[in-house]
Amino acid sequence: MANVLVVHGPNLNLLGMREPQLYGNHTLEQINEMMSQEAEGLNIELRFVQSNHEGALIDAIHEAIDWADAIIINPAAYTHTSVALRDAIASVRLPTIEVHLSNIASREEFRERSVTARVCVGQISGFQAYSYVLAVRAVYHLLAQGPQ
Amino acid sequence: MANVLVVHGPNLNLLGMREPQLYGNHTLEQINEMMSQEAEGLNIELRFVQSNHEGALIDAIHEAIDWADAIIINPAAYTHTSVALRDAIASVRLPTIEVHLSNIASREEFRERSVTARVCVGQISGFQAYSYVLAVRAVYHLLAQGPQ
Amino acid sequence: MANVLVVHGPNLNLLGMREPQLYGNHTLEQINEMMSQEAEGLNIELRFVQSNHEGALIDAIHEAIDWADAIIINPAAYTHTSVALRDAIASVRLPTIEVHLSNIASREEFRERSVTARVCVGQISGFQAYSYVLAVRAVYHLLAQGPQ
Amino acid sequence: MANVLVVHGPNLNLLGMREPQLYGNHTLEQINEMMSQEAEGLNIELRFVQSNHEGALIDAIHEAIDWADAIIINPAAYTHTSVALRDAIASVRLPTIEVHLSNIASREEFRERSVTARVCVGQISGFQAYSYVLAVRAVYHLLAQGPQ
Amino acid sequence: MANVLVVHGPNLNLLGMREPQLYGNHTLEQINEMMSQEAEGLNIELRFVQSNHEGALIDAIHEAIDWADAIIINPAAYTHTSVALRDAIASVRLPTIEVHLSNIASREEFRERSVTARVCVGQISGFQAYSYVLAVRAVYHLLAQGPQ
Amino acid sequence: MANVLVVHGPNLNLLGMREPQLYGNHTLEQINEMMSQEAEGLNIELRFVQSNHEGALIDAIHEAIDWADAIIINPAAYTHTSVALRDAIASVRLPTIEVHLSNIASREEFRERSVTARVCVGQISGFQAYSYVLAVRAVYHLLAQGPQ
Amino acid sequence: MANVLVVHGPNLNLLGMREPQLYGNHTLEQINEMMSQEAEGLNIELRFVQSNHEGALIDAIHEAIDWADAIIINPAAYTHTSVALRDAIASVRLPTIEVHLSNIASREEFRERSVTARVCVGQISGFQAYSYVLAVRAVYHLLAQGPQ
Amino acid sequence: MANVLVVHGPNLNLLGMREPQLYGNHTLEQINEMMSQEAEGLNIELRFVQSNHEGALIDAIHEAIDWADAIIINPAAYTHTSVALRDAIASVRLPTIEVHLSNIASREEFRERSVTARVCVGQISGFQAYSYVLAVRAVYHLLAQGPQ
Amino acid sequence: MANVLVVHGPNLNLLGMREPQLYGNHTLEQINEMMSQEAEGLNIELRFVQSNHEGALIDAIHEAIDWADAIIINPAAYTHTSVALRDAIASVRLPTIEVHLSNIASREEFRERSVTARVCVGQISGFQAYSYVLAVRAVYHLLAQGPQ
Amino acid sequence: MANVLVVHGPNLNLLGMREPQLYGNHTLEQINEMMSQEAEGLNIELRFVQSNHEGALIDAIHEAIDWADAIIINPAAYTHTSVALRDAIASVRLPTIEVHLSNIASREEFRERSVTARVCVGQISGFQAYSYVLAVRAVYHLLAQGPQ
Amino acid sequence: MANVLVVHGPNLNLLGMREPQLYGNHTLEQINEMMSQEAEGLNIELRFVQSNHEGALIDAIHEAIDWADAIIINPAAYTHTSVALRDAIASVRLPTIEVHLSNIASREEFRERSVTARVCVGQISGFQAYSYVLAVRAVYHLLAQGPQ
Amino acid sequence: MANVLVVHGPNLNLLGMREPQLYGNHTLEQINEMMSQEAEGLNIELRFVQSNHEGALIDAIHEAIDWADAIIINPAAYTHTSVALRDAIASVRLPTIEVHLSNIASREEFRERSVTARVCVGQISGFQAYSYVLAVRAVYHLLAQGPQ
Repeated sequence: MANVLVVHGPNLNLLGMREPQLYGNHTLEQINEMMSQEAEGLNIELRFVQSNHEGALIDAIHEAIDWADAIIINPAAYTHTSVALRDAIASVRLPTIEVHLSNIASREEFRERSVTARVCVGQISGFQAYSYVLAVRAVYHLLAQGPQ
Repeated sequence: MANVLVVHGPNLNLLGMREPQLYGNHTLEQINEMMSQEAEGLNIELRFVQSNHEGALIDAIHEAIDWADAIIINPAAYTHTSVALRDAIASVRLPTIEVHLSNIASREEFRERSVTARVCVGQISGFQAYSYVLAVRAVYHLLAQGPQ
Repeated sequence: MANVLVVHGPNLNLLGMREPQLYGNHTLEQINEMMSQEAEGLNIELRFVQSNHEGALIDAIHEAIDWADAIIINPAAYTHTSVALRDAIASVRLPTIEVHLSNIASREEFRERSVTARVCVGQISGFQAYSYVLAVRAVYHLLAQGPQ
Repeated sequence: MANVLVVHGPNLNLLGMREPQLYGNHTLEQINEMMSQEAEGLNIELRFVQSNHEGALIDAIHEAIDWADAIIINPAAYTHTSVALRDAIASVRLPTIEVHLSNIASREEFRERSVTARVCVGQISGFQAYSYVLAVRAVYHLLAQGPQ
Repeated sequence: MANVLVVHGPNLNLLGMREPQLYGNHTLEQINEMMSQEAEGLNIELRFVQSNHEGALIDAIHEAIDWADAIIINPAAYTHTSVALRDAIASVRLPTIEVHLSNIASREEFRERSVTARVCVGQISGFQAYSYVLAVRAVYHLLAQGPQ
Repeated sequence: MANVLVVHGPNLNLLGMREPQLYGNHTLEQINEMMSQEAEGLNIELRFVQSNHEGALIDAIHEAIDWADAIIINPAAYTHTSVALRDAIASVRLPTIEVHLSNIASREEFRERSVTARVCVGQISGFQAYSYVLAVRAVYHLLAQGPQ
Repeated sequence: MANVLVVHGPNLNLLGMREPQLYGNHTLEQINEMMSQEAEGLNIELRFVQSNHEGALIDAIHEAIDWADAIIINPAAYTHTSVALRDAIASVRLPTIEVHLSNIASREEFRERSVTARVCVGQISGFQAYSYVLAVRAVYHLLAQGPQ
Repeated sequence: MANVLVVHGPNLNLLGMREPQLYGNHTLEQINEMMSQEAEGLNIELRFVQSNHEGALIDAIHEAIDWADAIIINPAAYTHTSVALRDAIASVRLPTIEVHLSNIASREEFRERSVTARVCVGQISGFQAYSYVLAVRAVYHLLAQGPQ
Repeated sequence: MANVLVVHGPNLNLLGMREPQLYGNHTLEQINEMMSQEAEGLNIELRFVQSNHEGALIDAIHEAIDWADAIIINPAAYTHTSVALRDAIASVRLPTIEVHLSNIASREEFRERSVTARVCVGQISGFQAYSYVLAVRAVYHLLAQGPQ
Repeated sequence: MANVLVVHGPNLNLLGMREPQLYGNHTLEQINEMMSQEAEGLNIELRFVQSNHEGALIDAIHEAIDWADAIIINPAAYTHTSVALRDAIASVRLPTIEVHLSNIASREEFRERSVTARVCVGQISGFQAYSYVLAVRAVYHLLAQGPQ
Repeated sequence: MANVLVVHGPNLNLLGMREPQLYGNHTLEQINEMMSQEAEGLNIELRFVQSNHEGALIDAIHEAIDWADAIIINPAAYTHTSVALRDAIASVRLPTIEVHLSNIASREEFRERSVTARVCVGQISGFQAYSYVLAVRAVYHLLAQGPQ
Repeated sequence: MANVLVVHGPNLNLLGMREPQLYGNHTLEQINEMMSQEAEGLNIELRFVQSNHEGALIDAIHEAIDWADAIIINPAAYTHTSVALRDAIASVRLPTIEVHLSNIASREEFRERSVTARVCVGQISGFQAYSYVLAVRAVYHLLAQGPQ
């Protein structure tokens, strides 16, 4: 059995209330539920954290060193600004997948660049809640392959 | 009666000790007092929050969804860097006014651009403590007009 | 009693006919009237000038040296291009407030930067006609404080 | 019958004296004559204005609101610098065609970008005096189609 | 009698199906028909080529050396990227007119710059299918003038 | 049953011979086989095309209008340069998913930006051959949701 | 005897009142007087014009075609923005000297670049009123050499 | 005796586990111990704080106003992004030394620029744990000189 | 005996007709002949390909895997735009020499940068047809040294 | 009597042989002679140095501290690159005039910016050898005014 | 015992005469003396060189190959421009420490970037003469650690 | 018989000791010997100069006016920074070939651009010592053709 930390960045606690044409109609709780269902059949245990605090997200990533095999992260707005989050991901040396609900390449120009993507294994974006479900499958695939 | 959240960003707790030629001689408490006086006559109730934590400012904005009719915010240094704060303001969909004590256009070049202004209704800057008083009047005017 | 020059830049003579979702429904005359009402109670005398000619705006600012105590200016399109207007404001050494009807930070990217703002005391933007009314109050406050 | 304002920008009064390899050998008067001949057969009435003053060009565009159905403009040097002219064209909401005698794309790099083109219907450049004749036909075609 | 090559760039074969608010409602065949009608009266023979292959467009331009007197080209997306097309136009030394259906200056910023325009005689853009008709007249005018 | 076009861009025919640390050890044929297996259970029919010719890729996308419900594309090097491919995807108005074998965000800086991503629904990158398998699931999910 | 037009740009009418550490203590009248004295001994007749209107400066340059042998110009703020002034100088084909009171290279960065200098013979800057006197000598030297 | 606040930025709590070729083999505790030993002989009392929260670092700097004579700070990732930290350092007006374990000038280009360095007295970088020891000596030297 | 593929990019089929001051007077056939003569004495067999199609050039490079020991390529206009060609050269892992007839450093600024040069062994430019002859010698030298 | 150091930068020893349309026909010796003649009547003693070595020019400027009252310098190519020369001029705190034979604003773009001009009193450029003669008069004027 | 070359760049020979608020009051001789005192106790032998000639500094670094164990260098103005110095440091492969008297991050923007720092071990800046003393300790520490 | 000056720029005296994977294993003496051997058969006399001093390289180029028919130069680091060297090459008007040992296009980005290449006939780079041998052949070819 594998353990995976799921990190939700700033403002994602508001999901479901906020611009559904961009982010879909699911609440964060519903998304977590969808992920857990997908994970169950793959024998993956998920733990969830959401915070609007950059530092809290970093703390959560650090704490994952002791128990997690991989990370799924949607850094939201911090995607484009947080070198600290990038360094945190690089430091813990766990395979990490970056997820976005919307297609960040078709929004404002400043959202086109991800500071964090360079230290991740890969990215999945644009499929709203289903981006997360795909990430669960991707993480399963990565872990099944073993270290590279 | 209207309710308005007043958000003071990082380092503003030091007001009165710090570069009076830029920010004036008032402490944050005095500024809050000036605002409350102005608000009283206009039948506006103000609640104040100050934090140096980007995440705490975002949390406060989220919590305003349930009770506030508008927001007055001085994001201070986060004005120029915080996409997360911008997304928070955009998410809660409350009319928001950006305030600055100093004229940010006449300082360092990196302060000329505001990340948050685009999602606000308007900006008032350069009148020191009085910028906030004007913002109270502006918010009153906005709310009197009703939704647009 | 204080005297204040109010300078309206290019295309503002068309107000009321033009993009009301950006600029509101008031004509320039109505805006001037709103300002005069606000000024009356504050014992401020306003004189108005509007021109589409950059040179005429500069001439008006120069002529204000002899009688005005402050300037309220909406440089409109010249905000983003006119070094000459900037030098005029700097030359007469009168406290000047920059006003915009729309929130220039939420329009085209080239409108985000103001050439003139650096030599002004402060800026008020985004409240449509009410931006000017707030500017009258701001000018009153500045003059009440005396020279700094 | 349709009415069209033809606006000639700065330095075009010198046409015929000036760099014929770029602008051709015709004087401005001869160009106006060529346009009028083309317009006559199409039942279009043209009125011409030339000025070196940005403000005068804006005034002329404003005055066209009351009588013109379309505008043909060669903003000359103001093509590359005048946001005020751009706003004037946008304000009057008349279909406008931008014309250039020379091919501005094959001259100095700073002439490659047009500030005004974005608010026009289309552009015709590089055919010297004949650029204007084509513009008369284009305007006829636009007006024949009716509003879109 | 003059011979003119008309070159239609990538995706133009889809005209009529695709974004009519930008490109109008005509199919490519209809546009070719409109051009032929205009050309007939001016004693110009047109030959048409359309391809989505940059290389095929270059080949067509090369083959025109032996029979054509001028070229009318809408390089479509290659306008903004193809140095090879630019070199092809420059190599054959035939007077060339660049045509665009839409006003490229009012679309995405990367469409504002034309790589090919510098080696053309002139540009006509923004009049949808009628841009091509105007180009036929322009080519007639150019050829009537003889070499310059 | 749904039909999906799978488009492989330039140099992907060499897969398996080329930099396995970036692209994995699978040949293109093996990847196509993996995709077909995944698609079979989901009742999706895949058709594959690979070309090093930008024009041939555009032609293939155009031809998909008549039979395909969606597109999965790895534009490879054309990701970063081809406006023509972008226009092709936009023209056919089929939901399109961009796929990359490697994490393009962690390679040369010029690979960080995708010209084509803006007109796609979403992106999946960095999971080598498995990126394509995830894309099959994503396309299934999109089509199951119906038009949005 | 030679005739020279001296053109003073925007805000120079305020000289003597304005930032003496940058521009010196002389009024514009005094500067004109200093120039006339220098010119007298060299048998040069000077005519002066000052305007804050870009168009008026262009008009003055155009009118010089008929009588002037050379131009001395301080374009002031228009130095950095006016393509129209640049075109006017280029059009009249009179040898032109650009003058600045202050050393524009040691002020704000945007003043470092001159739009007009490229079409002038040379530049003299930084010697306050004496810059103009040197320009009279330079013009004398240029005219004594005859056409080149 | 002097009091000095030592501030360790985000991810530095992981030192010793993380990229030793960049940061050396010491844990943060060992570094603090090395600093304390150096400080003891110089009669300097050190207090240490580490946080991954930008706001917590700002709070710590504010609290130092009452008791510290100087600050030694390694802002880590916030070096390159935090205007808020920069403003905090500027506000408390204590002499501050910026320290880096690695030579930030020889890493990714975005690490070459420090937002915080401009408001510090000086910088020491590249000597791993020993950078901190040198900073203790530097702070001793600064304080021995008295205010400048 | 060694085998070398010689790749001529777009528009080079026109050599001899086109701008001889830049490219010399030789036709492509004559250049191939000069190369063959040089190669003969060095026991090198050359095969030539020319195409205006980016894809065809890539195909040719791929096919060289099976028989060639090295590549000499003049990518012409694709030098500055083709990431796909660059990836093709990198993929086949054959030593490749980039050749230019003209000195690309002394032409338009956009020709100064080569997208393909980074994945080549070296570059020879500016000697017109003789650039190719030097490349034959260079390839001989490279192959004589054996793998490095 | 005043003493002035005249510094000629790299390649100026070739004057008279080199591009007369840019630099005129005078040799360096002739220019020095012209300056000496002008200086004699003004009671100024000139000493000349020319070197192609940046370091030698700096040395000469340093040595001027003990005897010179001002410097006239034509830094030639070092104008655009030498921060060391700039620092040397700033260090010796002697009033310095920058001279150029040609109008550097009308040449290659990289010559438009002067690294050294910011630390000089003023600039004279474009009058060929006569630029130096004007500089002698300018230096006389500066010294006659006494320190400012 | 270790041998260390100390390299002082251009204009540093003037230390003590020049802007003491930036560089402190010590002459270069005094600084060398301070370093020697610090070095003596650490059993390090220092040799000093100062030159305003970039080439002379490179020569000195080359000559250090035969006898030095490390280099301490203040490249002064060459810090920001000299690729040649950078290559010299990289060539000799001796551990090198870059020193600056002033905090180069708080001066003109062009001084913020160091061309040479990337090939050094570390940097110490902002402590005036004491920067050099710290560098002696740092070099001692580096050499004590042995090769890494 | 022809005479050719061979100029070796900074740090090339260290060849053989320094990064052989970039520059090969030959010393400068060996390279000169290889060139002389190649030259002998072609009846070319070579003279060699190497210096780390930019000024000394310029002096050597100047002195070549009297005796050399062509120049072969490897400006090394000065390739990217020296406008003075560029002007020296342009001044002496001798055909000049730029040579590089390594492929400068595949190293640091700042080495991609050559300041000197624009004034040379051509460039040869990437073949280590053999780059120079090819340059001898190229120079022979250039001189055999006579002036162009």
